[in-house]
This record gives sequence, structure tokens and C-alpha cells, in this order.
Amino acid sequence: MTRDVVALLRDALGDRVVTDDALLEASRADKSGHAASGTPLAIVHAASISDAQDTLRIAHATATPVVTRGAGTGLAGGANAGSGEIVLSVRGMDRILEVRPDDLLAVVEPGILNADLNRALADHGLWWAPDPASREISTVGGNIATGAGGLLCAKYGVVRDAVLGVDLVLADGRLLHLGHRSVKGVTGLDLTSLVIGSEGTLGVVVGATLKLRRIVPGQARTLTASFPDVRAAASGAAAVTASGIQPAIMELMDATSLAAVHRLLALATPPAGVAQLTVQTDGPAASAEAEAIAVVLRQAGGDVRLAADDAEAELLWRVRRSMHPAMEALGTTLIEDVSVPRSALPAMFDEIARIEREYGLAIPTVCHAGDGNLHPNFIFEGAEVPEVIWQAADELFRAALRLGGTLTGEHGVGVLKRRWLKDELGDDQWELQRQIARVFDPTGIMNPGKVFAP
Amino acid sequence: MTRDVVALLRDALGDRVVTDDALLEASRADKSGHAASGTPLAIVHAASISDAQDTLRIAHATATPVVTRGAGTGLAGGANAGSGEIVLSVRGMDRILEVRPDDLLAVVEPGILNADLNRALADHGLWWAPDPASREISTVGGNIATGAGGLLCAKYGVVRDAVLGVDLVLADGRLLHLGHRSVKGVTGLDLTSLVIGSEGTLGVVVGATLKLRRIVPGQARTLTASFPDVRAAASGAAAVTASGIQPAIMELMDATSLAAVHRLLALATPPAGVAQLTVQTDGPAASAEAEAIAVVLRQAGGDVRLAADDAEAELLWRVRRSMHPAMEALGTTLIEDVSVPRSALPAMFDEIARIEREYGLAIPTVCHAGDGNLHPNFIFEGAEVPEVIWQAADELFRAALRLGGTLTGEHGVGVLKRRWLKDELGDDQWELQRQIARVFDPTGIMNPGKVFAP
Repeated sequence: MTRDVVALLRDALGDRVVTDDALLEASRADKSGHAASGTPLAIVHAASISDAQDTLRIAHATATPVVTRGAGTGLAGGANAGSGEIVLSVRGMDRILEVRPDDLLAVVEPGILNADLNRALADHGLWWAPDPASREISTVGGNIATGAGGLLCAKYGVVRDAVLGVDLVLADGRLLHLGHRSVKGVTGLDLTSLVIGSEGTLGVVVGATLKLRRIVPGQARTLTASFPDVRAAASGAAAVTASGIQPAIMELMDATSLAAVHRLLALATPPAGVAQLTVQTDGPAASAEAEAIAVVLRQAGGDVRLAADDAEAELLWRVRRSMHPAMEALGTTLIEDVSVPRSALPAMFDEIARIEREYGLAIPTVCHAGDGNLHPNFIFEGAEVPEVIWQAADELFRAALRLGGTLTGEHGVGVLKRRWLKDELGDDQWELQRQIARVFDPTGIMNPGKVFAP
Repeated sequence: MTRDVVALLRDALGDRVVTDDALLEASRADKSGHAASGTPLAIVHAASISDAQDTLRIAHATATPVVTRGAGTGLAGGANAGSGEIVLSVRGMDRILEVRPDDLLAVVEPGILNADLNRALADHGLWWAPDPASREISTVGGNIATGAGGLLCAKYGVVRDAVLGVDLVLADGRLLHLGHRSVKGVTGLDLTSLVIGSEGTLGVVVGATLKLRRIVPGQARTLTASFPDVRAAASGAAAVTASGIQPAIMELMDATSLAAVHRLLALATPPAGVAQLTVQTDGPAASAEAEAIAVVLRQAGGDVRLAADDAEAELLWRVRRSMHPAMEALGTTLIEDVSVPRSALPAMFDEIARIEREYGLAIPTVCHAGDGNLHPNFIFEGAEVPEVIWQAADELFRAALRLGGTLTGEHGVGVLKRRWLKDELGDDQWELQRQIARVFDPTGIMNPGKVFAP
């Protein structure tokens, strides 16, 4: 049977079907470090919508599970493929099919990298707002699959606010065009939003109509504020939000993160315990807003410095963007992704400190403080997450839920958080969501074992 | 059986159950003028979530259809109740339960009027962006049920961008809390977005967590531009969008609309054929943006005037807001609601002119030109829409779809557009959506005959 599936794929798709051991092995894991058990049957490198449809028709006829994959930069194991599964890679479908400055939209294939898209759009004076820290290596299709919004969400919205429509290949190979090209549209149920963040469980996103923005005019300004401890920095961030001034980006790094990045980049070691906020303002009022934020942060006890020029600003952002490599230098990393209402940020950092004490762990944390999305990192040796770390993570998730927050702000559930999904949704909603997924995929071949697996 | 249902409702809900003839009669119709056939069994004036749950439990047990209703200002017949149906009115559930300036959110009941909400939020320096022209008489729950965004969507987003979560009573009376209180959240499928615009077919919205904005600082500016014909005005609007300057509001009135409103308000008659754009800019750069838009509109052939003061601006907006009463003065009105990509606005007005010629009708049209959402009005005598008008409307819908647009930008499908739903969605998507609705409502008691009815 297994040989039959691969043979059927080869008959239909020729050399776009790959069974090279190293490539199969690579598709077992993502950037979470987690790997699926066993090895997938084959990888189909789709070059077109019809390739994706052919793959699904064969998968459907043979009851073979399909894992859709882009660049493999996920952090929840959602695109990891194991025994008996077909990997459908859409990474090669990376064309920009249409850019309409007059309608502020673009139509793209899912495999295009976020940074490549925005470099191309810049020629038109446009950009697409979702801005994950991984933008140089992650795909637009991956953003859509997970709902990965990145650094600019408080001011410029989440992925759902930036997608007008998606083209979806269903489990049986049929193609649906969901959504619309107009600013407004309420015809029937909003299946576009349902697909965003569905992590490959509803179908394969083979195209997207993106809502664009004009490039923001004026010179962005960057400032940093150092605080004696992370709670003070979190309170500073909450004070900025409460002041009504809207930064484009507001990032928080705790002392452990900051020290690790400074070590990686060979910068001077920051004082012990010091946490840092890095803030960007943009638009016509960027300078005035930066000055006003500086006042708020000084009142909150911060030692504030406005970047004098682009070079200094760039170094500050390089520090923030080096977080992931700095963590990888320390060991294997489990990057968490809880999100809380912004006023609860200081309380969430208290909870993290409590969990660090109780479990004897360091949990270096960066935080999109402007929108309340925290990325606590657990560091360990070896490939498998030790049980003690899952226990600490469990405490972390429960704390976020208690504070009115959510398990995942942007990385998704994948395999790594599926066991907590019912804690957030409740049994009734969990079951309803699973039934909705079954409407799209009655035989359960779309990314099985992810999100809804018990 | 019918008497049993009412008796069961009275046992559970006492005098919140009303069978007054005039009230039952009123709940057969909405602002579309369309009325359901027959008369509903009873109206339940829910005062709490548990009232809604009790009603649904009884409806479920007795297989009785339920039509959820707010202020009855819908324009597609979506909340019209007829024979054998229970009307569940949530209009009395109009409390603001929580306002959090620090988290930029509010938790409200569905029956609150849009304008009342924004008056209350103003005390906190906050507002909720959805701004239907009916804001003084329409409810927040109605916005959520239909996705009615109003005048500010191009700059400030649609309803989906402004709702973080909804509380939903299912067909069997169970209560679900959908969504989250944080800026970001991707745990499981986005059922909040699925409920927005679902027109009472998935459950009863009994509460909502709204994403708020700070009141925009600075003095808004208003300008008008008169054009010799509506196509020139539409081209002017498209030129503004293409210029990259983002107005807060940009409204277009064609000659027939403009003349009718001027007559209603006893203002001087505008020159024959003249169409008008009315534009508002806001924020710190409001004046500079208004001047820049004036330049674009003059280049497009417009006769531009900037309002000198608030009083003049207010009169200009009063003209726009008097459109609906002006149409009602002419006869019975069918208000349509197609939406197209903004670059297609001039072509859509060509299509309207063609349909006017071919059918010998006047189709006075106002348009949210900033987001490409048109409201063409068909005027006729009597209560029922004549078949010739449905034929003309059919041409209108097909033209919008050909231009990459959609049947309904914000009014919803209700009963009046259900026969065109498959034309836009296609058979496969229509069937998929219907099956999803059945997951929420397996026995089909939630607003049956609306949206998905064949």
C-alpha cells in the first residue's frame, strides 16, 4: 500500500515527488526542535495549484494523511510529518501573482518568504503588516496557517486583519475560493478567518489575497529604557499602553535574555538583573510620540535613551532579533507563546518568576509588550523536552489562562500544546471545533494528530 | 403544540414572554420593508444570558424555530419572524459590563445601541470603530450578526477587526465563550470571526468583547467636491484612494440621491446631474490631508469646497445621513449593498447607469467610496418588491461579481439575497457553509430559511 501511494504520486507528479532520506528526515521537525515519530512516505514539491489538487486526490483515494509544509520554521510542531504521511511542500509556490496599489491588495502564492514579499511591495510604496521575527526565513503561507503576527500587531493588526481571501484545496482535491477582493464583504460565513490559524487541518492554502498598507511616511524613531528588574519594565510597558500613545513596536527583554544576546553579539555585559524595553514609533508624529513615551517610561523608573541615528536604532533591533540564536547557543529551546491582556503583563512576569523559583529553572523571556504576547524560553539538553519542563510549562499556561489570556498568541497549537487545548476551549467548544474540521475533512487526512488530537 | 410552547416559555420566563398582537406584527419585518409570512408565536424579551438559554432549551426540546432580534433595523430581512417561530429579543440586554482603557476593550451585552455605546466610551477617551449610518437606532449585536461596518471601514477596519470575542448560546441552550481578551490569540479555530456576519444561524450572541480605539486627537476636517456626473465623482474617489492619502470617511451621492435629500431638507436644488463626494480627514494631519485630497479632487475635475467650520461640516454630514429618510419619502425602498474593489467603482457606476436605462428605472445610489461599498436604492409602490426590480437587482449583483465584488458588503444575506448566495460562493462552498451551520445547529432551529435556504 505504502509503495502504491508513492507510485501513484510519481505517476501523477513525476520528479516533483522526492524520497531522498535527508529531505524526508528534515521534514520530521520544525524550529521547535520537536520531531514526529517515524519518517514520511514522500515529499511532493508542488509547483502549482493543480499539483496540490493531484496530491490530495491521491491521498483521499488511498486514505493517506497529508502534512502541508512551507519553510519549516514553525514552533509548535504543526508541520512535522511522520510515518505513513505525505509531505505537501508549497515552498516552491512563491510567486506574487498580482499587486494592486489602487486596491491596496496583492495576490500571492503561499511559499513566498515574508521579507521577500515586503521587499517586492516596497517598489510600489506598499507593505503587508504581519511581521514575525522570522520574516527572513518564514513564508506567508506559514503566517496564515498559524496566525503569526509578529512585532507590529498592536498598531497594525493581526494576520486576520490583513487577509481578504484564501484559495483552499480541500481534502478530496476540490478547490475553493474563500473571501473577497473588496474592503467589505459579508456574503455567507467567514471561512477565510476560519482557515487563518487552522494549522493545515482544514485544507491546503494555495493562494491568498492580502490586504496591504501604504508604507508609513516619515522617519521611525527608536528608544530603549532600562529597568532594574523585569516587573518594572512590564509596568513601564503597561503604562505606555495606558497613556494612549501607540508605539509601532514595543519589545521587552528580561535580564537573562538580554545578557545572553549581549554575550552572543560580544557587546558589553548589562548590569545584573536589568531588563530592557525597546520601542519604535513611526508616522508623521514619530518624534513627538517617542518623546512622550520617553516621559512615561522615565516616570515609570526607566533609564531612557533615544537612538541618535539609524545605526544606533539598527543595533538595538539587532539585539532583539538575536534572541532566538542566543537561546539556541544555550541548549535546546522550547519557545512558549502565551498572550495576556496588556494590563496583566506585570502579573504574568510575577508568575514566571514564581515558576522559575519553584522549578529551579531560568526562563528567559522576550515579550511583544505592546500587545501582551510573551515568549518564555525553556532551555534543556538533548532532543526531548524533559517532563519537569512540561510541568513548568503547564503552570505557565494555567497562569496565562487565569489572567484572562490564551495558550498561544501566534505560534499555534500544533502537537506541543494539543494537550492543553481543552483547558482553554472547554469540552463543548473543543468538540464543536473538531466537528467543524471534520466538515472540511470527513476522513481525517489533513494533518491528523495536530491541534485536535486527544 | 403551539400553545404548549408558549406555555412552556411562560412557565420558565413569566412576563418576559409577550404575545401582544402589535408587537408580534412588528417583529415580522425590518427596515428592508420585507415581512415574514404569518405571525410568530411569541416574543421573549431576554434580560439575561440565562433567559436566552431557557428559551433555547425549550425551543430545542419542542423543535421550535428561533429568530434572534435586536432593534429590527436590518436591511435584508434576516431578523424577520413568521409562523411558528419564537422571537428572542436581546434588545433589553443593553448593559456595558466592563470598560478597560488600559486593555482597550469593553465587554457589552448585545442590545446596546451603537451610539449609546460610543457616548459612554467617550467618557474614557475611547470609541468602537464600527459606525453604521443607523448608529442611533441599531444595536451592537446587530452589527455583529450582520458585519455592518458603516462609514469608517477603509481607515478603521470592519466589524471583524473590532471584536475579540463573543459569548454564544447554542441551539440546545449551552453557552460558549469564544475568542479572547488579548490582542493576539490563535488557540484553535477562530469561531468568533465565524459568528460575525452569521445572521443568527449559528446561535445567539449574548455578549461581546470589543476591541476599542483611543479617540483620534485633533480636529477633523470635512470637504465636498461636486462633479458633473456620477462617473466623474467615482473616478475622483478612486483617484484619492490611489493617491495614498487615507480619508477617515469618503462618501459619494449620485444626482438623484443628492436632489432627493436637498428636497427633504429644503435646501437649494443642486444643478442637474451633479454628484457629490463628501470627505472627512482626521488625526494630527487632518488639515494637510484635506488640502492634499482637495488637490487630487480638483485635478479629477471636482469643484471642491473645504468646510469652514464645524457647523458647515455638520450640515454636509446631515445631507449624507438623510439619504434613508429621503428615499423613504419617495416610496417603498429596497436598499442594495454590493461591494467592489475600489478601482472598479467607476465601472460599477457604468453598470448601474446601464441597468437604469435597460429597465427604465432610477436607482439613486450612495456609496462608501473609500471602501467600494455601494448602496443602490430601488423605489417602488406597495409592500412587495415588483419582479422587474428583482430582475434589475439580479443584473446589479451579477455586475458586482463580474467586477470582483460581492453581493453584500455589510447588510447580510437574510432572506432577500439568499437566492444569489450560490452564485457568489459556488455550490461546493455553499454546501460546506451549510454543513458548518449544521454543526452548531443540528436540528435547524436557528433562524431557518435565512441565508442558506435554497
